[in-house]
Amino acid sequence: MNHNKESLLSTIEYPSDLRKLSIKQLPQVCDELRQFLIDELSRNPGHFASSLGVVELTVALHYVFNTPEDRIVWDVGHQAYGHKILTGRREKFHTNRHLGGIKPFPSPQESEYDTTTCGHASVSISAALGMAVAAKREGTNRHVVAVIGDGAMSGGLAFEGLNNVGCTPNNMLIILNDNNMSIDHAVGGMKDYLHQLHTSSTYNRLRNKVAQKLTSWGWLSDKGKKRIIRLNNSIKSFIHNQQNVFEGMDIRYFGPHDGHDVISLVYTLQSIKDMTGPRLLHIHTQKGHGYQPAEDNPTVFHAPGKFDPETGEQIKGNATDMPPRYQDVFGETLLELARKNNRIVGVTPAMPTGCSMNIMMREMPDRCFDVGIAEGHAVTFSAGMAKDGLIPVCNIYSSFAQRAYDNIIHDVALSRLHVVMCLDRAGIVGEDGPTHHGVFDLPSLRTVPNLTIASPMNEAELRRLMYTAIEKQDGPFVIRYPRGNGVMTDWRCPLEAVEIGKGRLVSEGKHTFKYKPKIAILTLGPLGNVVQDAIAKIAEEGKNMNLPAHYDMRFLKPLDNTILEKVAQEYDYIITVEDGALNGGFGSAVLEWLADHNYTKLVTRLGIPDKFIEHGSPAELYRICGIDAESIAKAILAEL
Amino acid sequence: MNHNKESLLSTIEYPSDLRKLSIKQLPQVCDELRQFLIDELSRNPGHFASSLGVVELTVALHYVFNTPEDRIVWDVGHQAYGHKILTGRREKFHTNRHLGGIKPFPSPQESEYDTTTCGHASVSISAALGMAVAAKREGTNRHVVAVIGDGAMSGGLAFEGLNNVGCTPNNMLIILNDNNMSIDHAVGGMKDYLHQLHTSSTYNRLRNKVAQKLTSWGWLSDKGKKRIIRLNNSIKSFIHNQQNVFEGMDIRYFGPHDGHDVISLVYTLQSIKDMTGPRLLHIHTQKGHGYQPAEDNPTVFHAPGKFDPETGEQIKGNATDMPPRYQDVFGETLLELARKNNRIVGVTPAMPTGCSMNIMMREMPDRCFDVGIAEGHAVTFSAGMAKDGLIPVCNIYSSFAQRAYDNIIHDVALSRLHVVMCLDRAGIVGEDGPTHHGVFDLPSLRTVPNLTIASPMNEAELRRLMYTAIEKQDGPFVIRYPRGNGVMTDWRCPLEAVEIGKGRLVSEGKHTFKYKPKIAILTLGPLGNVVQDAIAKIAEEGKNMNLPAHYDMRFLKPLDNTILEKVAQEYDYIITVEDGALNGGFGSAVLEWLADHNYTKLVTRLGIPDKFIEHGSPAELYRICGIDAESIAKAILAEL
Repeated sequence: MNHNKESLLSTIEYPSDLRKLSIKQLPQVCDELRQFLIDELSRNPGHFASSLGVVELTVALHYVFNTPEDRIVWDVGHQAYGHKILTGRREKFHTNRHLGGIKPFPSPQESEYDTTTCGHASVSISAALGMAVAAKREGTNRHVVAVIGDGAMSGGLAFEGLNNVGCTPNNMLIILNDNNMSIDHAVGGMKDYLHQLHTSSTYNRLRNKVAQKLTSWGWLSDKGKKRIIRLNNSIKSFIHNQQNVFEGMDIRYFGPHDGHDVISLVYTLQSIKDMTGPRLLHIHTQKGHGYQPAEDNPTVFHAPGKFDPETGEQIKGNATDMPPRYQDVFGETLLELARKNNRIVGVTPAMPTGCSMNIMMREMPDRCFDVGIAEGHAVTFSAGMAKDGLIPVCNIYSSFAQRAYDNIIHDVALSRLHVVMCLDRAGIVGEDGPTHHGVFDLPSLRTVPNLTIASPMNEAELRRLMYTAIEKQDGPFVIRYPRGNGVMTDWRCPLEAVEIGKGRLVSEGKHTFKYKPKIAILTLGPLGNVVQDAIAKIAEEGKNMNLPAHYDMRFLKPLDNTILEKVAQEYDYIITVEDGALNGGFGSAVLEWLADHNYTKLVTRLGIPDKFIEHGSPAELYRICGIDAESIAKAILAEL
Repeated sequence: MNHNKESLLSTIEYPSDLRKLSIKQLPQVCDELRQFLIDELSRNPGHFASSLGVVELTVALHYVFNTPEDRIVWDVGHQAYGHKILTGRREKFHTNRHLGGIKPFPSPQESEYDTTTCGHASVSISAALGMAVAAKREGTNRHVVAVIGDGAMSGGLAFEGLNNVGCTPNNMLIILNDNNMSIDHAVGGMKDYLHQLHTSSTYNRLRNKVAQKLTSWGWLSDKGKKRIIRLNNSIKSFIHNQQNVFEGMDIRYFGPHDGHDVISLVYTLQSIKDMTGPRLLHIHTQKGHGYQPAEDNPTVFHAPGKFDPETGEQIKGNATDMPPRYQDVFGETLLELARKNNRIVGVTPAMPTGCSMNIMMREMPDRCFDVGIAEGHAVTFSAGMAKDGLIPVCNIYSSFAQRAYDNIIHDVALSRLHVVMCLDRAGIVGEDGPTHHGVFDLPSLRTVPNLTIASPMNEAELRRLMYTAIEKQDGPFVIRYPRGNGVMTDWRCPLEAVEIGKGRLVSEGKHTFKYKPKIAILTLGPLGNVVQDAIAKIAEEGKNMNLPAHYDMRFLKPLDNTILEKVAQEYDYIITVEDGALNGGFGSAVLEWLADHNYTKLVTRLGIPDKFIEHGSPAELYRICGIDAESIAKAILAEL
């Protein structure tokens, strides 16, 4: 950024301001926008490298298209920070991802410039096609543009969208932002395919000079003919230069273009903007472009936390005494188990780093499968491996596993296949907000027959449950655990089995004042630790001689009949606590058990209420949901 | 079929018997197998045209491959009747789809020749890839073959599978059975793409004689060069003859071949069987092949019911006085509403005939979107249209909507978009069995914020709910209703709104014996009629002066507070009845309401227990689940 020039970015409140600039000023806008992102995100952590990669595209789109009347549909909103900054949110951008601040992803509730709430990948083409059809039906001249990365393109939904784009009358433009990355590296045939399209730098000239090129390459010579005859590889490379899957689907293809040349992008967009029929513009960008540390290490800089803007050095908290992240416990334990049992294989849909399967992947690359953004395939593929004797450990973020719901039911549960589903990021995830909270897994999976469903209260329990699920089970087993740090610094306990469907007593409580109700608290998962804090709080305050008993149920399914029988008979009041949606969840399962066994008990259920929980720190959101230590203590004291 | 020859089919108990025959005998086997299917299915209804179309492929596969050691993975099992007949189930085939008889789809629980339980489409590639990877890891020489139709190929899962096939070491063979049909006609770019591959009858020769052909067509002349320059269409047709999307994804492509020439199929399969790496064989078949009425009308003959094997005439029951199917009420009402409000559009994933959206489609083809087998896209596409002012009515079978779970959450509910989701085939569906019962929708959707969820007790209620959802709502609205006939012959009631979240009193009951508990029955959906039968039964028997009150709750979400308050205060005992999974369902919602309002009531919940329900007639399955009139009467009498 040239600090001598007057700032342009500061004059841009809305895209209409941007559109007043001359095209020659756009590179400066891009520089300033990039620097703004670097400065802001070094202080206030968020998704970084994706937005940096689409700075030029963002500027070009808002320059060429008449937003918000024209619709830009971002696929996975973590690339949309630049978009937010150019559309009325620059001043507030320092509140990004904070409670009550700018939302982590685009949201129509926040701005008319945001067309969808887009936290999950591969959505844009389908949604944009809907908008394009609506525009056509209503006779408007509105343009609709979907911006999708090559990583998101591996999702089945994107293909379903593409498949319909060609056969539905519409004028939409798809921009394929090809950076050979999703969050980790993109995988799959489509990636290779796009790579081949890209590496053909002659593509564009070819479109205009096919015949000359064919001749100059000698393809039309006798030698060329023979090469054509050796079909597969030779024709493939030949063909890739001219025809592609998009045109095969009746979508006009343009590209690949340099996605960092903003002026050329503007000209290109202007030239194809008003064409009729569906079009795809393939651009090549670099994740983290313009910031060397991010270019060098885009996976780390996908969401780097705080960093030094000069050096790129990540600023870590003093973490030496911190308990490990559940992710690391998962990763280390998986490797430990896999070393002993060579039937174990790992499957992840594009999250090897996020879920820490990369630990196993480094040592056993041939036993780990990163299938790309393809949650449904991850599960059904796992089912196929389980059918023929392997033990797949399939790790999916809870909220993304919603995409594999039918696969879990139809391909795994129905056949009782031994697939171990590890649902990472279960419960409140914090700053990523409502698209990422993993709060529907318990109700939606509890209703599926044949599943065993468990959640560990701490790291040692996670290890035990993983061991049990892998070595002691012969059917589908779901383990859900949260994002972030556990509670144990010394977590490398021996790998022991737990009995399936058995919970454990965490604290007995005491019942000195007999005339007061006797309370039992039942928890599932790490919130059990918060309940322990709440009980300790009550004990410390010393006003109550009574304290509730606390059981960590461990299993949502099957429920522990022994504990429930004991609690139903010996206690007057039950409180259930879960880090998930209350409608149909763990507390509900307890209610069902009581009703089915003819108990009529007073039960208070604590958990996520029936609304989408916005973004904020986990602590803030737990408090809002009434499942922080203080709220739980209050709920206990109300009955004690 | 030549009746003079000795039967070969009757000598084939297992594929090993088939493999003893000479290749020249295979056409006769095919003829006999086809005739067997026609005879059996004319008497005992089932899926018909699909299996008829793959007779030759089925015979060729079992002839060439060493089943069951080699794995054949059928995509959507309704094409697998021939496979069942050749693999030990010929004698029992007359029990197909009957309670306790042969299962409607392949199932590993039934036979070692069945590799997956495959009732949903697009699964085969992912599952087979898992098996191929397992085979490779375990060092076996097992072959794995996936058989997928072009309709199923439009599903995103199939693409996710394909995308991974090319980049995962494996030796699998994919057979693309291209009949230009799913159940209705196939749609989408992929269909057109395959069609172009097919219509090039010269494709195979081209593979070997590219250069000659190019010359003979004049492509290499100057004129040809000019044609090449006029890129899109001209190059497209040129290219389609040589390169295709599969090879672009590193899957070797063979085809298209005639799928009804069994001898040539055998030779082809033999020649590519032992090649390494992933391969795709594209064959062309005709749905219903070899039976003229089915060839002429494959959609009707997808599952034709009983028919005259000589003429193909369908044998219909005496249906004049029958109440209409819910499907027809949906279809007629949708058209009625769409005529009055031009913002209404219809969306169906490949089921226009099944769900009766074809009624609207005939009159308003440009306002109906058959998106192919692509449930996720159907919902997200609807969300896009709703965003920009249309009112999409998206009809998906309940069990298939499991595939759109995340789309409903992330793309519709989170943004409170006005998408009307009509879930057809909700509850027990009968003979199609566990893959098709729509029993998980209530629990899995009830936990999603912002959804309104309702189920009509009869046809008039369906009309009122549709009217309400479309005209009186501004957010997402789910209506679930079952397969098959309703209860009203005169169903064309005026289109009136119902109040959202309000149920209705169906019968007051009576409480003559005051010392006995006062019972209220709460129902959701058409099982309310069965409850009415049960109450009538009890009243008729006259042994009890008391009768329960019966409320049709209509809405699962929001629940009717007024009714629940009244019932909780005035009644001693509550029975809930639902045609869905008990875990987390409607009864559970009632339990939650009671607990949250500090009521401790005895509640009996009737519905689908926590296991997969097999196939059988709906009446049989309701009895097994305890939700037929007799079982419900018994449950009432136990408390009365």
